[in-house]
Amino acid sequence: MKTESVCVPGKLSSVFIIFGATGDLTRRKLMSAFYNLVSDSLLPDNFVIIAIGRRDKTTEQYRQEMLSAITKYSRNPVDPKIWNKLSQMITYYQFDFKDLDGYTELAKHIQTIEKKSCTGGNRVFYLAVAPLYFETIVKGIKKGGLSDTCSGFCRCVIEKPFGKDLQTATQLNNSILQVFPEKNIYRIDHYLGKDMIQNIMVLRFSNAVFESIWDNKHIDNIQISLTEELGVGSRANYYEQSGAMRDMFQNHILQILSLVAMEPPANLQMESIRNEKQKVLQSMEEISPDFLQNNVVFGQYDEGEIKGNKVPAYRDEENVNPASRTETFVALKMHINNFRWAGVPFYIRTGKRMGTTSGEIIVQFKDLPHTLYYKENRVQQPNLLILHIQPKVGVFFQFNTKDFTPHNDIVPAKMDTSSFIPDQGNTPEAYERLIYDILRGDASLFSRWDEVESAWSIADRIIAYREHIKAHFPNYKAGSMGPERATELIEKDGRHWIKI
Amino acid sequence: MKTESVCVPGKLSSVFIIFGATGDLTRRKLMSAFYNLVSDSLLPDNFVIIAIGRRDKTTEQYRQEMLSAITKYSRNPVDPKIWNKLSQMITYYQFDFKDLDGYTELAKHIQTIEKKSCTGGNRVFYLAVAPLYFETIVKGIKKGGLSDTCSGFCRCVIEKPFGKDLQTATQLNNSILQVFPEKNIYRIDHYLGKDMIQNIMVLRFSNAVFESIWDNKHIDNIQISLTEELGVGSRANYYEQSGAMRDMFQNHILQILSLVAMEPPANLQMESIRNEKQKVLQSMEEISPDFLQNNVVFGQYDEGEIKGNKVPAYRDEENVNPASRTETFVALKMHINNFRWAGVPFYIRTGKRMGTTSGEIIVQFKDLPHTLYYKENRVQQPNLLILHIQPKVGVFFQFNTKDFTPHNDIVPAKMDTSSFIPDQGNTPEAYERLIYDILRGDASLFSRWDEVESAWSIADRIIAYREHIKAHFPNYKAGSMGPERATELIEKDGRHWIKI
Repeated sequence: MKTESVCVPGKLSSVFIIFGATGDLTRRKLMSAFYNLVSDSLLPDNFVIIAIGRRDKTTEQYRQEMLSAITKYSRNPVDPKIWNKLSQMITYYQFDFKDLDGYTELAKHIQTIEKKSCTGGNRVFYLAVAPLYFETIVKGIKKGGLSDTCSGFCRCVIEKPFGKDLQTATQLNNSILQVFPEKNIYRIDHYLGKDMIQNIMVLRFSNAVFESIWDNKHIDNIQISLTEELGVGSRANYYEQSGAMRDMFQNHILQILSLVAMEPPANLQMESIRNEKQKVLQSMEEISPDFLQNNVVFGQYDEGEIKGNKVPAYRDEENVNPASRTETFVALKMHINNFRWAGVPFYIRTGKRMGTTSGEIIVQFKDLPHTLYYKENRVQQPNLLILHIQPKVGVFFQFNTKDFTPHNDIVPAKMDTSSFIPDQGNTPEAYERLIYDILRGDASLFSRWDEVESAWSIADRIIAYREHIKAHFPNYKAGSMGPERATELIEKDGRHWIKI
Repeated sequence: MKTESVCVPGKLSSVFIIFGATGDLTRRKLMSAFYNLVSDSLLPDNFVIIAIGRRDKTTEQYRQEMLSAITKYSRNPVDPKIWNKLSQMITYYQFDFKDLDGYTELAKHIQTIEKKSCTGGNRVFYLAVAPLYFETIVKGIKKGGLSDTCSGFCRCVIEKPFGKDLQTATQLNNSILQVFPEKNIYRIDHYLGKDMIQNIMVLRFSNAVFESIWDNKHIDNIQISLTEELGVGSRANYYEQSGAMRDMFQNHILQILSLVAMEPPANLQMESIRNEKQKVLQSMEEISPDFLQNNVVFGQYDEGEIKGNKVPAYRDEENVNPASRTETFVALKMHINNFRWAGVPFYIRTGKRMGTTSGEIIVQFKDLPHTLYYKENRVQQPNLLILHIQPKVGVFFQFNTKDFTPHNDIVPAKMDTSSFIPDQGNTPEAYERLIYDILRGDASLFSRWDEVESAWSIADRIIAYREHIKAHFPNYKAGSMGPERATELIEKDGRHWIKI
């Protein structure tokens, strides 16, 4: 007990309590993230991970399982020294989190650990469980007094999805607020942890050349396209209830849209940034059924072919209702009615089982119609700035240049940073960054309640419209780029989905 | 004679008369240019080159000499088929162009050739001789009636330099005007034939992203830097009289400056473009001795080292006066006082025997001082657009981006088109383009008299100042980047010469 009196906890020292420590998320993401944090020397010495699972096993058994998981899911071979350091931080605690009476015992366990671990009384409660259990656990935390006895910081991390509509999200939020104040609630949107998402603000606000032309005077349209070749896989139980709207639109796409369209914040503090993001959602054009009639397209994939392999229709996937009305694709035109963006359409599309896996933000600048080189019928290629989010990560820029041949034509030059940042492949896992931010108390990359609320209120109207119109599903072949009508949606405006 | 009555000359068909056909320019540049034109199928079948030389030789001997020259100076191996086609177009004519009486005979010779060659009576007179002889030849052309008897187009091509000051240039111009109207005078500035020089207008006027920020609200400064490692070589007789001001500044640099700074022309016709270029020179800040005192630096190279080899001082070069006061370097700050450019300094430097051979136009955009990411003391790298003229040819663009490492810093991303236009190395020789333009009657890339006049009147004042101040020469080491004062010239403004 001597160490206790003289110990000086690091700023990030804490007890990190994982509910759902034997689940998929912990195995696939969290443990590799912790491993990377240790490897990058970003974790303090005084750090304890309490892994909570229902099953009976020893800490040593659990550690071995996690070593296997890291070995399987980590980008790089596991360094025994790093693993050894991390494994010493992990302790397993057997407990069924549905048992509300058990939380008192858990509280004692945490306090015991805190007494010998010099973690400064800081606690993080990470809810890596099915959304169904979020409220249960928060109630347990309250009942066991786990948050009352924090003597340092006391943060609660909620995985997505945060509710399944405005009503359930509000209810969940009210439950959490009874235990944790808003500033201690970290609503994960793991998309925000991606490098290029974090780069949106940097690109805009550290380059006068971009920010000077980031408006309706210079931009013709912006496209946000998140497509994947994968189908629903083993997630049908979740996806049947969610669909593309809840799975991608309500969170990732609206977050991206906010970051792309926001005004420069007064400073880089998280509240300032969130205020500006929230203003974007508030400026969104009213989403009425009338508006939606011409501006949204839903889709569900039929059987088809991806990279030469036949793949089944959504309705034939495991655990999917054979008459399912869940959308696996959505395309949408939106407007942000403020002084910066009035008149600039934002075209959005996201879907599963599409022809390509790609996350892109495409900024198409205005043409110079009929000026000088384009007086005659020369085809004008647009100036494009593309932020490649995944799997390619980098910035693409297209401009027109002289063709250095005797043909003396004008051709597009395509520049791509991916060739110029050699260690771009070494991006830390998104979760590494998210956990690090939680420990530092930086919630910039997490969603604030009013953002979630606005996002749901937008998504809810679109989902209600979808339920109202009863589209004919399936309506696009697996391996295609979505329903025909999604192409028409943009082409009727004289534009097209940009493909590089 | 039957062919004569039925022949249909091509648009570019002509008799191309070269004065100085045994000289260096013809051997090194013109013949390879013709070879390339044939190779690219840009010359019509009805095309005759009359090669005029003082020495006695047969057409066949001359052709063999030119074959050797093309073999030596061409980028690619000579294709016998192409050469065979070209050689049939070439005919040698022995004649001393200083003999004014001989031009009557030459006129007859041309007419004889025209009768059997179906060239439509079109004539090009190309003066590939020392400037000393420009007036002599023009007088001969007049005396022999060579221009009076053109029944098609009738163009006169004058190599640089066009005069050695405003007075001599005016005198030369008046002589030529007695024979050819302004629209038929093609004053060569071979720099304008370079791909990237021709690309300046294309980049500016076919990309809204660039033209939108091409002004004093967005640009901090523009640097034009034309440096070479080479010394005066065997050209001292010319260079002693010329120096960097006449060799580089009066023509190339002022042309580049005009293209970079011009307003968009009303159309792409040559007169419209020249009008806008001329306006730039007219808007230049008054070049008074007071202004020059702080804004110009002259230099002359001392001995030094280039790529590990010792090289002599300028004054020790062959045919150079050991007390020569000729400048081999000049750096200058200029202002263009119009609404687009007021307040934006143009920094110019050019010199021989410098540390690198490079022609660059560097556009440095304004920083975002103390905003967001730069509130603290983070070093801000500027947004740069660089047009690499030679030997590298392409566009370079630098912007700031997130460093994709856990350090989470902001770093400059450097994009360069040279990686993305694979056949950029295959640029046609500048002279190929120039000759083609002469035949097409497109004088956009040649200098109009009022441009030459303005350029000389600017250069003359700077040269007069140089003669007045008597700088201490030599004042920079061969292999350096010029005199110390050239660095001070820009650094006293809180800027520096950009080096990528």
